[in-house]
Amino acid sequence: MRWKTSAIPSISSPSAQYDVNYFTQTLDHFSFTPQSYVTFQQKYLINSKHWGGASSNSPIFVYTGNEGYIEWFTQNTGFMFDIAPQFKALLVFIEHRYYGESMPFGSKDVAYSNDSTLGYLSSTQALADYAILITDLKKNLSAEDSPVVVFGGSYGGMLAAWFRLKYPHIAIGALASSAPILAFDDIVPSDGYYNIVSNDFRNESENCFNVIKKSWKILSEMSSTSSNRRSLKESLKLCQDSDVDSVEGWLSDAYFEAAETDYPTPANFIQNLPAYPVKQMCKAIDNPSSGNNILSQLYGAANIYYNYTGNLSCFDLRPSDPHGEGGWSFQTSTEMMMPMTIDPVKSMFPGSDYMESIQDFTYLNFTWAISDWIPTEFGGHNIKRVLKRFGSNIIFFNGLRDPWSNGGVLEDINKSIVAIIAKEGAHHVDLRFATEEDPKWLVHVRKKEIDIIKRWIIQYDKDLRTI
Amino acid sequence: MRWKTSAIPSISSPSAQYDVNYFTQTLDHFSFTPQSYVTFQQKYLINSKHWGGASSNSPIFVYTGNEGYIEWFTQNTGFMFDIAPQFKALLVFIEHRYYGESMPFGSKDVAYSNDSTLGYLSSTQALADYAILITDLKKNLSAEDSPVVVFGGSYGGMLAAWFRLKYPHIAIGALASSAPILAFDDIVPSDGYYNIVSNDFRNESENCFNVIKKSWKILSEMSSTSSNRRSLKESLKLCQDSDVDSVEGWLSDAYFEAAETDYPTPANFIQNLPAYPVKQMCKAIDNPSSGNNILSQLYGAANIYYNYTGNLSCFDLRPSDPHGEGGWSFQTSTEMMMPMTIDPVKSMFPGSDYMESIQDFTYLNFTWAISDWIPTEFGGHNIKRVLKRFGSNIIFFNGLRDPWSNGGVLEDINKSIVAIIAKEGAHHVDLRFATEEDPKWLVHVRKKEIDIIKRWIIQYDKDLRTI
Repeated sequence: MRWKTSAIPSISSPSAQYDVNYFTQTLDHFSFTPQSYVTFQQKYLINSKHWGGASSNSPIFVYTGNEGYIEWFTQNTGFMFDIAPQFKALLVFIEHRYYGESMPFGSKDVAYSNDSTLGYLSSTQALADYAILITDLKKNLSAEDSPVVVFGGSYGGMLAAWFRLKYPHIAIGALASSAPILAFDDIVPSDGYYNIVSNDFRNESENCFNVIKKSWKILSEMSSTSSNRRSLKESLKLCQDSDVDSVEGWLSDAYFEAAETDYPTPANFIQNLPAYPVKQMCKAIDNPSSGNNILSQLYGAANIYYNYTGNLSCFDLRPSDPHGEGGWSFQTSTEMMMPMTIDPVKSMFPGSDYMESIQDFTYLNFTWAISDWIPTEFGGHNIKRVLKRFGSNIIFFNGLRDPWSNGGVLEDINKSIVAIIAKEGAHHVDLRFATEEDPKWLVHVRKKEIDIIKRWIIQYDKDLRTI
Repeated sequence: MRWKTSAIPSISSPSAQYDVNYFTQTLDHFSFTPQSYVTFQQKYLINSKHWGGASSNSPIFVYTGNEGYIEWFTQNTGFMFDIAPQFKALLVFIEHRYYGESMPFGSKDVAYSNDSTLGYLSSTQALADYAILITDLKKNLSAEDSPVVVFGGSYGGMLAAWFRLKYPHIAIGALASSAPILAFDDIVPSDGYYNIVSNDFRNESENCFNVIKKSWKILSEMSSTSSNRRSLKESLKLCQDSDVDSVEGWLSDAYFEAAETDYPTPANFIQNLPAYPVKQMCKAIDNPSSGNNILSQLYGAANIYYNYTGNLSCFDLRPSDPHGEGGWSFQTSTEMMMPMTIDPVKSMFPGSDYMESIQDFTYLNFTWAISDWIPTEFGGHNIKRVLKRFGSNIIFFNGLRDPWSNGGVLEDINKSIVAIIAKEGAHHVDLRFATEEDPKWLVHVRKKEIDIIKRWIIQYDKDLRTI
């Protein structure tokens, strides 16, 4: 494994600094049953080091937390820390209900025990949480006139965009990074996600793409005899005997997530990875370190994605949840159902149709009942026509290597609801801490975002004095 | 009672024609508990007589129902019927959940039995009901490209305005008539409502104002002896012995509601009334038909307001609810708390302070907990600054004789979120059926509204072809 024995490039991104706070939040903002008034503690992180204060109406930058520990997203949203000094901004990172410590009903065990308790996990409740917390925080800081800008990546980016659309009286603008707000219903082609992943690999190397494409048939044959199964386990260095479906899922995840996090510098978001992990995985496939058979090629690619630090002696395929994302499967099986199919011709993956895509979700009956809820509540169909004469101040960033860009807003909608596209970009790469190795296009994307946010604040300050 | 023995001007407004439909609606749109998936039948009325049809993208005009039977609001929103032919519009009037027949849990008795069932009565749930019903209706009519304009008066007008703000992808514009969306928290002066009522009476006659102003002291003295109480009952022709508080409330309501419905033509909205009822009540006070004492003057005024048809032989002060508005007290004691105080100097009413105003609401603890919920969810503070660069296509109509105009939007916010004011107007007078006796200013208001709505639709049609 020569290609990774030399020192791993040190990930020199600074660590996010903050104080930890809690806010007493109400369980249900939209009904008034006795249960609605139950409260829980919502965690939020705050950094006031550079804040200019309420008296100068210095801005408040809020991260609208998504599905996981808020510390995880905070550490991966260095952009807010990087730009805080020039904006004299207060930084606030709010944890999403039912994730991390922000657990109703006292504990995750109770909160997740059944639908009666878990049922209050929804995007609309989360947005109202943010509205209430921000309003209260501003009041407590006597900073009612400080403009709020919301930031978010991925689902957090959807929440940021939707927050600006639904709560324009609380946020003057939103940076929605890699937010697939169009991933619902039939708004975008459902096979786009896996096609993007496949093209990312193909663009690195046609051979790499072809090896992966033909690997599935070979993998499926590996379940035929016990010696084949042993060989599979040994070749891929699996810790346990694993069925072929699990192995296929594990490899698919590696390809998908490598494309998603195909960052230009070493990064530790989902996994600890080198710069351009897709390129590295294809190198491992194109130049296998041990033997030129497909299993050793797949091992090489998987070893980049899952074991870049080299600490693992074997791969444990049992489910793990290091970032506390467990609630997301409830969300995708209720309102967040984003149909994904796989085209076996265009992509390098085995085919999967719409029905399979939907059946992946746990609560099948529920899913069917509300599969068009998100476009009904937040829109999405004909978004350009709808928002051309409505709304303002949203930046939609998308990196086109990111499969999620398939569900993103890729064109300007009006003068101030704009799309920023980076052909070479990956999942909310703009939100990461800047590094000295950042490519020019990324420096340029961030500068553009900063300039736009500055214009929002200047305009707000002007309005504040005159309206 | 000469001044009303001659024939009552016949109320010649046509009667609203419609078909009755029901839609299977979900109880809770924002959570996913087992209870959330309970369904109920939501009533809506539809008139397709003039609709140009889906193939020509002819518009759909939707009334966002408020607190009462939908038939009541439909009959009092003749404007939509009057303009349907020129717009070739489909008319839809949706009943608000927990009113009329749109009763979850099978019956009003069960639905209203406790907070566990009644708790799903909220503005946000109602707006989502409308979003879902309209989306489904358009799909069923294959009219996805037909533009929807929402209409509403009073609370229904708030819902119309909020619907355009929260669901711009479903409604291209809103006519929000007499919608006091600023009546919350401390956005507008809480004593404005009763000052407007008082000024309406004062503008008719200084004597009338003064008689009412001094009447409260005399009334309060009427409880001192049993002979006084008997005299009170006889003078005011009350059916039952009634305490002075009830009588005061009953008279206050008459003044308030007469100001609210001070229409220029005979009308039957809250009560069957002559044109300009405030003027008529002041005439009764200024020229009492029997005896020149205050009680007979008050009787004369009350008899105009409560008994214009002359059918009542005595006044029954026990609560009645002819329009099915019972749920409103739950709404005002949860989220719809609009603080109202009374200035005993400026107004003709006995003083009432902020605390009393709040204590009028039943569920005191709940009220306190969420008194700022509506501005948090829908905005209202600094509305001009917030919406100047956000949102479009809302008409806020207000008649300045209407006490509710105190909480209305009285100034243009931007080019297409505009205020139309009628100095002589009352509560959503613009929405009433046109009559031949309508004053010029009212004809002018409606023409202005029609012109604006036409522009919205022309713009939409253009966008539909090009975006």
